[in-house]
Amino acid sequence: MQDYLGRLKKGTLKLYALEQELTPDEAVKVRRTFIEEETGADLAPLGKYAIGIERVVKRNCENMIGTVQVPVGVAGPLAVAGEYASGSYYLPLATTEGALVASVNRGCSAITRAGGASVRILRDGMTRAPVFSCRDVVHAADTVRWVSEHTDDLKRAAEETTRHGRMLGIEPIVAGTSVYLRIAFDTKDAMGMNMVTIASERIAVLVEEATGARPVALSGNVCTDKKPAAINSILGRGKTVVAGIGLSDDQVREIFKTDAATLAEVNTRKNLIGSARAGALGFNAQAANIIAAIYIACGQDPAHVVEGSSCITTVDPVPGGVYVAVTLPALQVGTVGGGTGIDTQAACLAMLGVGGGGTPPGSNSRAFAEIIAAGVLAGELSLLGALGAGHLARAHATLGRG
Amino acid sequence: MQDYLGRLKKGTLKLYALEQELTPDEAVKVRRTFIEEETGADLAPLGKYAIGIERVVKRNCENMIGTVQVPVGVAGPLAVAGEYASGSYYLPLATTEGALVASVNRGCSAITRAGGASVRILRDGMTRAPVFSCRDVVHAADTVRWVSEHTDDLKRAAEETTRHGRMLGIEPIVAGTSVYLRIAFDTKDAMGMNMVTIASERIAVLVEEATGARPVALSGNVCTDKKPAAINSILGRGKTVVAGIGLSDDQVREIFKTDAATLAEVNTRKNLIGSARAGALGFNAQAANIIAAIYIACGQDPAHVVEGSSCITTVDPVPGGVYVAVTLPALQVGTVGGGTGIDTQAACLAMLGVGGGGTPPGSNSRAFAEIIAAGVLAGELSLLGALGAGHLARAHATLGRG
Amino acid sequence: MQDYLGRLKKGTLKLYALEQELTPDEAVKVRRTFIEEETGADLAPLGKYAIGIERVVKRNCENMIGTVQVPVGVAGPLAVAGEYASGSYYLPLATTEGALVASVNRGCSAITRAGGASVRILRDGMTRAPVFSCRDVVHAADTVRWVSEHTDDLKRAAEETTRHGRMLGIEPIVAGTSVYLRIAFDTKDAMGMNMVTIASERIAVLVEEATGARPVALSGNVCTDKKPAAINSILGRGKTVVAGIGLSDDQVREIFKTDAATLAEVNTRKNLIGSARAGALGFNAQAANIIAAIYIACGQDPAHVVEGSSCITTVDPVPGGVYVAVTLPALQVGTVGGGTGIDTQAACLAMLGVGGGGTPPGSNSRAFAEIIAAGVLAGELSLLGALGAGHLARAHATLGRG
Amino acid sequence: MQDYLGRLKKGTLKLYALEQELTPDEAVKVRRTFIEEETGADLAPLGKYAIGIERVVKRNCENMIGTVQVPVGVAGPLAVAGEYASGSYYLPLATTEGALVASVNRGCSAITRAGGASVRILRDGMTRAPVFSCRDVVHAADTVRWVSEHTDDLKRAAEETTRHGRMLGIEPIVAGTSVYLRIAFDTKDAMGMNMVTIASERIAVLVEEATGARPVALSGNVCTDKKPAAINSILGRGKTVVAGIGLSDDQVREIFKTDAATLAEVNTRKNLIGSARAGALGFNAQAANIIAAIYIACGQDPAHVVEGSSCITTVDPVPGGVYVAVTLPALQVGTVGGGTGIDTQAACLAMLGVGGGGTPPGSNSRAFAEIIAAGVLAGELSLLGALGAGHLARAHATLGRG
Repeated sequence: MQDYLGRLKKGTLKLYALEQELTPDEAVKVRRTFIEEETGADLAPLGKYAIGIERVVKRNCENMIGTVQVPVGVAGPLAVAGEYASGSYYLPLATTEGALVASVNRGCSAITRAGGASVRILRDGMTRAPVFSCRDVVHAADTVRWVSEHTDDLKRAAEETTRHGRMLGIEPIVAGTSVYLRIAFDTKDAMGMNMVTIASERIAVLVEEATGARPVALSGNVCTDKKPAAINSILGRGKTVVAGIGLSDDQVREIFKTDAATLAEVNTRKNLIGSARAGALGFNAQAANIIAAIYIACGQDPAHVVEGSSCITTVDPVPGGVYVAVTLPALQVGTVGGGTGIDTQAACLAMLGVGGGGTPPGSNSRAFAEIIAAGVLAGELSLLGALGAGHLARAHATLGRG
Repeated sequence: MQDYLGRLKKGTLKLYALEQELTPDEAVKVRRTFIEEETGADLAPLGKYAIGIERVVKRNCENMIGTVQVPVGVAGPLAVAGEYASGSYYLPLATTEGALVASVNRGCSAITRAGGASVRILRDGMTRAPVFSCRDVVHAADTVRWVSEHTDDLKRAAEETTRHGRMLGIEPIVAGTSVYLRIAFDTKDAMGMNMVTIASERIAVLVEEATGARPVALSGNVCTDKKPAAINSILGRGKTVVAGIGLSDDQVREIFKTDAATLAEVNTRKNLIGSARAGALGFNAQAANIIAAIYIACGQDPAHVVEGSSCITTVDPVPGGVYVAVTLPALQVGTVGGGTGIDTQAACLAMLGVGGGGTPPGSNSRAFAEIIAAGVLAGELSLLGALGAGHLARAHATLGRG
Repeated sequence: MQDYLGRLKKGTLKLYALEQELTPDEAVKVRRTFIEEETGADLAPLGKYAIGIERVVKRNCENMIGTVQVPVGVAGPLAVAGEYASGSYYLPLATTEGALVASVNRGCSAITRAGGASVRILRDGMTRAPVFSCRDVVHAADTVRWVSEHTDDLKRAAEETTRHGRMLGIEPIVAGTSVYLRIAFDTKDAMGMNMVTIASERIAVLVEEATGARPVALSGNVCTDKKPAAINSILGRGKTVVAGIGLSDDQVREIFKTDAATLAEVNTRKNLIGSARAGALGFNAQAANIIAAIYIACGQDPAHVVEGSSCITTVDPVPGGVYVAVTLPALQVGTVGGGTGIDTQAACLAMLGVGGGGTPPGSNSRAFAEIIAAGVLAGELSLLGALGAGHLARAHATLGRG
Repeated sequence: MQDYLGRLKKGTLKLYALEQELTPDEAVKVRRTFIEEETGADLAPLGKYAIGIERVVKRNCENMIGTVQVPVGVAGPLAVAGEYASGSYYLPLATTEGALVASVNRGCSAITRAGGASVRILRDGMTRAPVFSCRDVVHAADTVRWVSEHTDDLKRAAEETTRHGRMLGIEPIVAGTSVYLRIAFDTKDAMGMNMVTIASERIAVLVEEATGARPVALSGNVCTDKKPAAINSILGRGKTVVAGIGLSDDQVREIFKTDAATLAEVNTRKNLIGSARAGALGFNAQAANIIAAIYIACGQDPAHVVEGSSCITTVDPVPGGVYVAVTLPALQVGTVGGGTGIDTQAACLAMLGVGGGGTPPGSNSRAFAEIIAAGVLAGELSLLGALGAGHLARAHATLGRG
């Protein structure tokens, strides 16, 4: 140990090189000890992990010093009626924010009592948009035209780079001399960003050869990855999912201690008008909370919570009650790859019955997306209900004072 | 065990009630076993946690069944020159996305070699915006007027609800009969959402009493919490932080294998024009990645990655090199409360020297925000550099073919 | 004539120089004739104008060749109950889009029958935001701090550049090394863009002298002038106006042949959810139509229709009917300056009783803004009603088929 | 006259009914006189029009009382190299904003000296998006599926409603139970909103019959008409046009008294970063000014300036100079219908050689769009140049002071 620490301090050994000389667990320990000495912090808690890290240090995390442990609570059972997920589920929610699990749980119970959430996937395609520089606007227009006329060739070439993926289309966007080709792929059970990036690289080479347009960056932000963007809401990225549930007046009253008109009013003034007035791209109460908690539990890329937050929640007054729905334009999930194979994360996916590749391919990630959408619906219902009831409570208190 | 499982199955014992009869560890174990039986999944990995959960089950997570373990890697050392953070830091990054730590690490090394990132906090205030319903637009205008004329009274009342917080102001926004009061608080070392919510409740009661405006929801989405929203970019939410670094041509060439003009071009075509063309509210390469990784490591609310993703990255050509900066309009962090007290998360905060309340109050959360901003700068530099170098590599290959 | 045409053709006389040698009417005629010869078009209709152009060629339009005549229709009477406009008005609408006047007229009649539109101005300030370049982010932060600490000095200096204007405040926005100072002015009866630009120039000089921040452009687009921008919706630009009207179920039925629930549904699915789903910054049916028509009639800057289009329309279900409101965050109008003095435009302003400077200053432009907001409300009501009735008509037809 | 005025006052004659008893000119006169008496304003100037109003009162403007006269200036010659417009043009600009014509003129002269603007149309399709209400989210998904599977049938039916139009496609957007079908039409030389609305009505009926989805409004704001909306920037509405010009360092210096680097910096800090920071959907300097002026001169719908303002302006540094381009995602124009047939407006279109229907159909409106884009480019160049020169001037002054 001292030897390694000495070399690290002298700089003759690099932090990232420890795994070349040591087993993963030893390397992690030495590195953690080094950081402890450098920072004076006691990092012992990080060292008490229970996951196998052989693959983790190669695939998931460089310069590993241990793990952080995030509490996982369950909400459910949640009845879901999707095309891929059908049945009753317990949601694993990794969170440190008190009350979140309880809130989602209440929503699950409302949905289940009301017969289960209907869920449908409307679109499914991961995207990547390399940006090219053209000589002038005529060159830009010609490049777009060439791409449109050779989409089939590009599709063939792109699909040679992947076993499972299927190219769905290319949407060209131009700004002056910049040409963005937003390439969409069906990436089956993988979240698919790597897959579509590799395919995009192939396409970029072909486009450059044929048109002379110069690739500037493999990602030109028209993708749009991990930034809130209207293009994802409009054209989708990952899975576009919609989930809904009808609640009778009695159910609203019993479960949420409020009434249908109040639920609708809260949604309109908060999620629709409030968000509009704030210049928001998300029209929901707390979609990001639920998505973040499930993503962390299930080994998803947590930065994709950004796109998840563009959810729009609607509450329709209907005879005898309300119909509440959530629309998630851009939900990026995978059941293979990324963090899905780590022991604890794999266990959470197993809880939902969606771990690994599905049969047929793609069915697991779609089932997963459907369950998440139902979970988001539960979170929305619960928070809208709580806000509505607070309003009524206050109203009553006010009357009482009178 | 069997007894509890039996009662859970029969429904005579509720999942959330286990802690009333059992120690936290036992309750978590019974609950996990129950979920295993219900779902058929092996959840053993979730049970091998090493954190103390006495407080966790009360404050951080209901219905706990164990923990998920997220690998933590380090990037650094990162030299930071802020007003609160000053020195060299190792960043704890909790992530399952391979290459992220390595990418940030490269950026840290560039920044440190170039003398360290300058960082400044421009604004600091957590917000909450209750929404009120008015009878008509005249009533809405009168309500706003009353609030403007009684801001001092409201401030006094609001500050009675908290030991540390200080009300900074109230921004009224009207849409027809809906009045939103966006209340901003200096919440010191706490992220502060609870604090400002409680204060908002007090304010809401006073506004209702004085004006008759009816509170509809304590959060009217003008806050805006966990939804991408222009209002947060413009007026700030949490901390508005800016970080920058100058790199010489030589440094760009040596560290990133590209040149200043290419860095600038990639930033313009990708982060500025690409994002503009996508209808985005974020103008950066990967800010969300870094923020998510630090937030999860340090017990922050991961859904706040949404606001973090509104970062804008700029690359100025300057004589002899470039000046690269990131502007984070809405970074919500705390060093007390939330998940900051859990063993592993507390250790990560300790690594940065910012755990717990600072002296003076607020200085720890501000130092933390400055470090994060520098980390985001590292991530941006690294990805822009990689994209730029890829471009040059391809350019060279193309020439080689000729 | 031939002499001038010859010199114009040879290039020895510049088109813009004609007024130096000729009376305005002659200059316009020669120029028009020249353009006719160059283009082969018969431009005689442009020459039959009836306005006095002495001042027009100096102040409103260079290189004048005549006028275009835009038909003006009237809608009204429209009952308005504002703080500045109170009474019954006929709206002058300059338009070539058939059905627009009729549509607004129907709305006016509904409003008037229901007792008149309530209108209030919530904010009033024209803005301009010069952008400065700083050396680095520390310099940027220091510049903002200096401005905050010297706002009173800057206000004093700025107000020396104008007789009427009063500086309301400076909102600093930073992006990396760019500092934007969004300066707001009460410009009284003038639309005020020139006034605030001149004042901004003065401020820019002082800021540069004191801080060394280098002015890059007098308008840095954070103003934001004539581009749709959330900042204008949130902080206002020009006048923020809200107008509303309550309609009983009977009124909805009689005037619009639909019912309250349908009006509310059309507004929710179209103006709120539809706009949200389109990534829009405007949540209304046709606000731009009414604003454009009044602006052209009354000599306003028609490019400001852009900001006008950010209107949000709300329909609240209330016992026995609906309450409909429009909120115009950024309405830029003036009753002096710009095109307001041209004979026909001045006549249109006179129709509304708001021509020229008001007593007290600012009261005319405010009255004008209130009337416009009421006109927009009329247009919204009318179009929502028509869409709602169409829906019912179709519903009836469908039933009839059965 | 007195008889009519008396009946109008008594209410036994409606204002809109005057044309049933009188010639258009007499009707307009009586109506104007009535309004004069009601308002006390002298409206004589409105009565001195020179256009034939037989068709105007039927097609363009109800309740006509005269015309407003807007000064028209010319800018040019402007060299344009498009696919439909090729040659040298004088732009008719109807405006009351002093300096606008001069500004555009300077830009035209720069473009022409530099060889003319290249222009290309990238997309062309007018859109309308009716909104339907579904029973639940499953019904919504089924409706979208049905539409996708029957697009050919719907296209056939839609095209029966028009002689010229051709349906280009249907983009379905879902939000909960709301289904929006964004229908795109090639409307040839007409701006085409009426055409696509009529076609949409036909489609709505068929969709309702087949799926049971209930049409709520013929326009569901996903179109998006006259509201700033990202969907139009991304998918286009009307014509998507790009125009560009290369300027050498010498040309920049001579014409604009500034240099290439300054032009680029102004564009980056103002049009890109400033707009980004303002939450804008438009990234340009003054596109709306030019579009408004040409639209009013040429009888276009001036409320469409809203979509025009979403222009993005780019300035690329290139060896020896700059390449400046404008991208107009959504330019809605027509050379037949609307106000294009009114005498003065028709004359302005004739000036550009694009009046009436083109051969082949569509070529005139496309040529018109190309010319407008070149005009916008002129306006951008000119304002960026002026801002840049102002900056240099100040810089020099500052140095001089030293």
